[in-house]
Amino acid sequence: MIKRIAHIGIAVRELDTAQQVFRTLLNIAPSHVERVEEQKVDVSSFHVDDTNLELTAGISEDSPISKFIEKRGEGIHHMAFEVDDIHAELARLKAAGVRLIDEEPRMGADHFLVAFIHPKAAGGVLVELCQKAE
Amino acid sequence: MIKRIAHIGIAVRELDTAQQVFRTLLNIAPSHVERVEEQKVDVSSFHVDDTNLELTAGISEDSPISKFIEKRGEGIHHMAFEVDDIHAELARLKAAGVRLIDEEPRMGADHFLVAFIHPKAAGGVLVELCQKAE
Repeated sequence: MIKRIAHIGIAVRELDTAQQVFRTLLNIAPSHVERVEEQKVDVSSFHVDDTNLELTAGISEDSPISKFIEKRGEGIHHMAFEVDDIHAELARLKAAGVRLIDEEPRMGADHFLVAFIHPKAAGGVLVELCQKAE
Repeated sequence: MIKRIAHIGIAVRELDTAQQVFRTLLNIAPSHVERVEEQKVDVSSFHVDDTNLELTAGISEDSPISKFIEKRGEGIHHMAFEVDDIHAELARLKAAGVRLIDEEPRMGADHFLVAFIHPKAAGGVLVELCQKAE
């Protein structure tokens, strides 16, 4: 079952510039900034109600975010739904014939198990499922 | 002040197909389907926690959504933040030099006052502010 939109990932060119823009726009400060070496990105999170906006900038040209920006420009990169049981959700979607990027969840940032669904299976939206690991 | 992400608008080619996809993906039924003649779109809303995912399909070729899809393909079209005072927010953003599409709010669907901020002022994201009209 889907519990909430955990975060919305926004691909940006420069984190400092984007942080300033969203600070003005939302009139709040980022709650959290971190480097995720595995994904080659810097992430700055703004907490809005029960969701985070995650500004994400590549730290090298071969980062998935840098490649995304090269192709599509800055903008929303993905949307993450927190689920209560990621294994059950993936099994349900697989049985329904939904095209998955990750058939098994893997460990992501912040002790969350994560798995991605192919944008072609979700109206052009890159969808992430996540579940807090125990 | 921003209260919550009111909705995320997703541009889709065919509403029936997209509804089926999101019904499978989210494992819930749409809560609301409506035609918004003024925007030349059909909208199907899926309620997730405190936010709505709004699948939006153009009903004619000159609909803004049809034009968006022609240029960018299907995907997230905009993100709407509910604010407590839309006039105050617009005045604050204008004073900060943020590029606005609507300097004054206008009446949107569901008795909401709405105003859009230019994507160039928001990391490539088309941002809508909205406030329940009294």
